[in-house]
Amino acid sequence: MTAPSAAPRYEQLADDIEAAVRRGVFAAGERIPSVRRASVQHGVSIKTVVHAYALLESRGVIESRPQSGFFVKARPVARNGSPARAEGAARGTAQGSSQGEKGRRAGAEKVPMEPAPNAAPAPVDVSRLVLSTLRSIVAQDAVPLGSPYPDPALFPWRRINQYANAIARRHAGWNLIDDLPPGNPELIRQIARRYAENGADVDPEEIVITVGATEAINLSLQAVAKPGDTVVVESPTYYAMLHAIERLGMRAIEVSTHPDTGIDLDALERVLARKKVAACMVMPNFQNPLGFRMPEANLRRLVALAEAHDLPVIENDVYQELYFGPTRPSSLKQFDTRGLVLHCASFSKSLSASYRIGWALPGRYRAQVEKLKFLNTLTTPSVPQVALADYLRHDGYDRHLRRLRRFYREQARLMRAMIERFFPAGTRTTDPQGGYVLWVELPPRVDSMRLYRAALAQGITIGPGYMFSMRNDFHHYIRLNYSYPWTAQTEAALKTLGELVARMA
Amino acid sequence: MTAPSAAPRYEQLADDIEAAVRRGVFAAGERIPSVRRASVQHGVSIKTVVHAYALLESRGVIESRPQSGFFVKARPVARNGSPARAEGAARGTAQGSSQGEKGRRAGAEKVPMEPAPNAAPAPVDVSRLVLSTLRSIVAQDAVPLGSPYPDPALFPWRRINQYANAIARRHAGWNLIDDLPPGNPELIRQIARRYAENGADVDPEEIVITVGATEAINLSLQAVAKPGDTVVVESPTYYAMLHAIERLGMRAIEVSTHPDTGIDLDALERVLARKKVAACMVMPNFQNPLGFRMPEANLRRLVALAEAHDLPVIENDVYQELYFGPTRPSSLKQFDTRGLVLHCASFSKSLSASYRIGWALPGRYRAQVEKLKFLNTLTTPSVPQVALADYLRHDGYDRHLRRLRRFYREQARLMRAMIERFFPAGTRTTDPQGGYVLWVELPPRVDSMRLYRAALAQGITIGPGYMFSMRNDFHHYIRLNYSYPWTAQTEAALKTLGELVARMA
Repeated sequence: MTAPSAAPRYEQLADDIEAAVRRGVFAAGERIPSVRRASVQHGVSIKTVVHAYALLESRGVIESRPQSGFFVKARPVARNGSPARAEGAARGTAQGSSQGEKGRRAGAEKVPMEPAPNAAPAPVDVSRLVLSTLRSIVAQDAVPLGSPYPDPALFPWRRINQYANAIARRHAGWNLIDDLPPGNPELIRQIARRYAENGADVDPEEIVITVGATEAINLSLQAVAKPGDTVVVESPTYYAMLHAIERLGMRAIEVSTHPDTGIDLDALERVLARKKVAACMVMPNFQNPLGFRMPEANLRRLVALAEAHDLPVIENDVYQELYFGPTRPSSLKQFDTRGLVLHCASFSKSLSASYRIGWALPGRYRAQVEKLKFLNTLTTPSVPQVALADYLRHDGYDRHLRRLRRFYREQARLMRAMIERFFPAGTRTTDPQGGYVLWVELPPRVDSMRLYRAALAQGITIGPGYMFSMRNDFHHYIRLNYSYPWTAQTEAALKTLGELVARMA
Repeated sequence: MTAPSAAPRYEQLADDIEAAVRRGVFAAGERIPSVRRASVQHGVSIKTVVHAYALLESRGVIESRPQSGFFVKARPVARNGSPARAEGAARGTAQGSSQGEKGRRAGAEKVPMEPAPNAAPAPVDVSRLVLSTLRSIVAQDAVPLGSPYPDPALFPWRRINQYANAIARRHAGWNLIDDLPPGNPELIRQIARRYAENGADVDPEEIVITVGATEAINLSLQAVAKPGDTVVVESPTYYAMLHAIERLGMRAIEVSTHPDTGIDLDALERVLARKKVAACMVMPNFQNPLGFRMPEANLRRLVALAEAHDLPVIENDVYQELYFGPTRPSSLKQFDTRGLVLHCASFSKSLSASYRIGWALPGRYRAQVEKLKFLNTLTTPSVPQVALADYLRHDGYDRHLRRLRRFYREQARLMRAMIERFFPAGTRTTDPQGGYVLWVELPPRVDSMRLYRAALAQGITIGPGYMFSMRNDFHHYIRLNYSYPWTAQTEAALKTLGELVARMA
């Protein structure tokens, strides 16, 4: 049942080059031969070299630099704080309750089980792996199943551009000072109005505009915790949460998270009882990668827990608008009466990714977040802020969203059906309630990094499970993006993936 | 020679409200009466209330929130690391050499002397003060002598907008992935070409695009130092340097900095000999606030010092293009052979402030800075990147810069002449060699915070000396912005300022 033992040619080439680097033939920072030259030197095709270099990049041995080629990665002494460390105990504690069937939705036969805890450390640098996955999509024009971003073609770009153009024509110059933190007042008003229309009572004066939700999450975490502090995340978690924790020199505790109901609240309660936790970071709606919608009772219980422990909760709610069901989901923020929830969101998943407009509703930490925003990037670019404000005021955001939700729901159905058709027995998928990603459990022998490399060699990207945890628990899981229109190429890619999985299983 | 003892009405009102807050009449987070209501309650004019509230804001007692009024500032327990602390010793050490006349340019009679060291801690929150100064410019339509930003009307906005519009028309959608860190490849190429034209040999593959130089500086500092580390800055220094240090929980040592020649290298050498320093942050060209151009011999010696101590140097070079002399200044980066200089720059001072496009050339720390960029804000908005790339490729950046330099040089001359005319004896100014700010030493009894408040009451903003140091050394210094076209209003504002100074002296 193991994969054929002979490694493909590109993998052998990668091993050879890596060995040369280890021997010092190529020093850190030095350029390695161009693809063309290496192809001649080693007597292999250009394509083989390209794949070998991509593999070396994902292993962290080399890095590509724009317009100049590939270089041996420098390995300087780490000076920016100690990396985030995951604690095994919390997961162990969580097993008892989360392994049970009580939280599982009836009829969902293909929900991934949680794997047994595994003490081995994650073998990859998560943020490097994420970045190199993204790069490989661009560099090789690969099928973007591994992308975390929605297909930009689905956004009302033409309309948004028209607003941006009108603004640019209206203003001779734009004074930086006008849109200092908290941000452009009209955009803030439109965001608050949107929440009000959705039945959430949001105080406009609480909103701080940021460069995407990424900045909002980073600033929120820094506002409530300090280096060395312990932060609870879901497991699996959206990797930007781990990045934020790692970058700020904090420690992560991963708490078991159910694919239907979200973070295990019993396990969380036990962690809080025995440990000083500075913050908890969750994604209650259509979590990336699991796609669940946390039941309202759980939202309430999580807020109650936070209040009992005076625990700030960072809520990443970027997918809230992308629900498939008949009713709009609630967010933690709506149940928060004490200002402990720092709610982060953006337009990047629903309206425009490259405009990079996000925001935070930081509750009682508003003053700190606003100040940190000023210190981090001074201010968010003006024209994107005003263009989105104009779009929201004058255009058909709701109509656009209705179309988008219908499309994603249908795509999710299609991709699940194709996986059922092409993948071997032992494969299971989530049944996402919103968003545009699917979490796939593969047979336990399949290593998602090996699958990632093999897929890349075929021009296909996937999101390996290693991205979503600091531990080794999800080595046989992958995340797939279904936001791109269904084509023969997508179908062929899934078929190829299924064959690779079957070979490795 | 002291100021009249009776405080103005608005100051009395501010004191009364502050006392009420201390007594708990208004709780943290609570809204205080609107300007209109307070005017009725206290029987004073609307204007008096506005000034009193601005004063309370600058004292950190209240904060204004958009569209909703003024609130008592929450004073939660600080949780985001300990604030940066300045060490008095370094400045003391530096006195011996920098007080001498050797570095002073002949004929520059109005160069501020360095004040004697003063052990009293700075009484204000620097970043709050900076933000509230900026806000007061907008809120009260004040004469923007206190602004750190150039007049946006001088930028080629119409042209840049045309490029942005053309891009928006060209692209149906923009894929976020295309411009992932290090950034848009064409913009990177144009920036490298610009350096090459200026005689600097820059490797395009070293460039990382950021959200303004602010982000570049923050990421650079985080790449080379960790919480608790000690970082050397100039004194006075550009406050964003202090902000970065404070935010990352590091400690600042301020080293005496001469208004003609920059940081005192003898003093720096002594600090390095006796203390472990993680980084040094400098602004060799037209430093904000002093405006000096560091002599080339000093640049070389600073790089040599850095190499001898394996010391990363963060070079903020945002004003490099704004030189007044016949020759373009060099930067530290040009003399750096070991990759120790992290050079940060942007287009915000020379081409477009609100586009927020900056970059870093992080030397041997490139991999870390690129990764931190990805973690901090994911990517920089695309359209601004491409629009500036198109402008640089097709348009008259050099012609624009020649005009800008001539204009600023003439404005500097004018403002110095007006200060000589309107300000009392004992006032001295720098003679900036580039940029658009002037540093003014007032008679020692004048407190720049008091002057700031009094000026604000007259609809004039200034940059109080307290912004530029964690210590009390520059309490009688102010920074003035001369980028705005000279008008009768500017002249009247300087006359008023001169009278206020004379009264306080």
